[in-house]
Amino acid sequence: MSKPLLQIALDSLTLEKAVADAKQAENLVEIIEVGTILACAEGMKAVSTLRALHPNHIIVCDLKITDGGAILAKMAFEAGADWLTVSAAAHPATKAACKKVADDFNIAHPELKVKKEIQIEIYGNWTVEKDAKEWVELGVKQAIYHRSRDAELAGKGWTEEDVDLMKKLSALGLELSITGGIVPQDVHLFKEIKNAKAFIAGRALVGEKGKATAEAICAEIDKYWA
Amino acid sequence: MSKPLLQIALDSLTLEKAVADAKQAENLVEIIEVGTILACAEGMKAVSTLRALHPNHIIVCDLKITDGGAILAKMAFEAGADWLTVSAAAHPATKAACKKVADDFNIAHPELKVKKEIQIEIYGNWTVEKDAKEWVELGVKQAIYHRSRDAELAGKGWTEEDVDLMKKLSALGLELSITGGIVPQDVHLFKEIKNAKAFIAGRALVGEKGKATAEAICAEIDKYWA
Repeated sequence: MSKPLLQIALDSLTLEKAVADAKQAENLVEIIEVGTILACAEGMKAVSTLRALHPNHIIVCDLKITDGGAILAKMAFEAGADWLTVSAAAHPATKAACKKVADDFNIAHPELKVKKEIQIEIYGNWTVEKDAKEWVELGVKQAIYHRSRDAELAGKGWTEEDVDLMKKLSALGLELSITGGIVPQDVHLFKEIKNAKAFIAGRALVGEKGKATAEAICAEIDKYWA
Repeated sequence: MSKPLLQIALDSLTLEKAVADAKQAENLVEIIEVGTILACAEGMKAVSTLRALHPNHIIVCDLKITDGGAILAKMAFEAGADWLTVSAAAHPATKAACKKVADDFNIAHPELKVKKEIQIEIYGNWTVEKDAKEWVELGVKQAIYHRSRDAELAGKGWTEEDVDLMKKLSALGLELSITGGIVPQDVHLFKEIKNAKAFIAGRALVGEKGKATAEAICAEIDKYWA
């Protein structure tokens, strides 16, 4: 059980804004994510630019790959992404294709300090028993768990059901990145998730209050994952 | 029951190649799609460039939106997309957000000849009875039915189950775009789909044989949707 990392999701519409936000947050986070919005706005140059600017951070490319797995994965990993998101709704063959690109990359580059990995981003209709087990059987190590968007939009918090599902995913061996309006006072909710890999926040880590928020999240992490 | 249109999916890794392929195919197709691969590689300038080059074609932006619906939809429609794909696995709130952006755009621009529309791209676990009915209730008019690209690469062909599901979707009133390695000799498989809106092909329409393939598909369309 290692300590969860902090991840900033960059979801601006321009690379210029993303570069500025990353620069400001670079000492606060271990992981820099090229969010779906940024990737769709600017393309893979967003990944390659942030890779060049932050050689010592883990770079996540949040493509939520749903199809065309082999080509998209190759493109993102070659642009410099360390981890890559794949939609839970993708066909198993798509997930397998992405996984194979990562594995082949790792074999070809044994010098990599951070291994290429795919992260199953949980969307759509799924079950722990069938779907999540399938991901684990494929050799996937990471998944991303979101707060129910309904709950978030309705201003409701994380539910017991969320935490229960996370525990089940964690028990399968999946490392979880947790996202959905994460604020410092939420962190304790997840203290029983052994395999919490990262907490993801976006705008909360940007701007004047960004540093204080990041420090507050990290203090909570230190408290529960000593 | 109107005649299905022909759509070219541009999935190259560079805008230069996509522009060349679109130019070559412009007289063969009614719809030009900025595929997911192209959109992720080059960003929204792929949409705006193809929009500028092909003002009289329908432009589809294949983002397979899974989250962040309002921002991504605004970005794609403002770049010039007429139709925009949204993943079936997206939360209903995400689909509703995309739909609202399209509707608002149409209200603000009554002069548009082609109305902005979203297309539900069918991925993941879903049912006609629950999920597809939800799309229709939201006011969605179009869906995309396909063989997964990766399933296709694994040699999985069209099945009776595929056609049966398409008939059920069509019966709900959804117009269907059909994709996944479409070749002329496949077209007859879908002759009973009343609401076939478009057939989508990619590389099959590019290069030396592209023109002949497009003409062969159109001849089949004329045969069954006279």
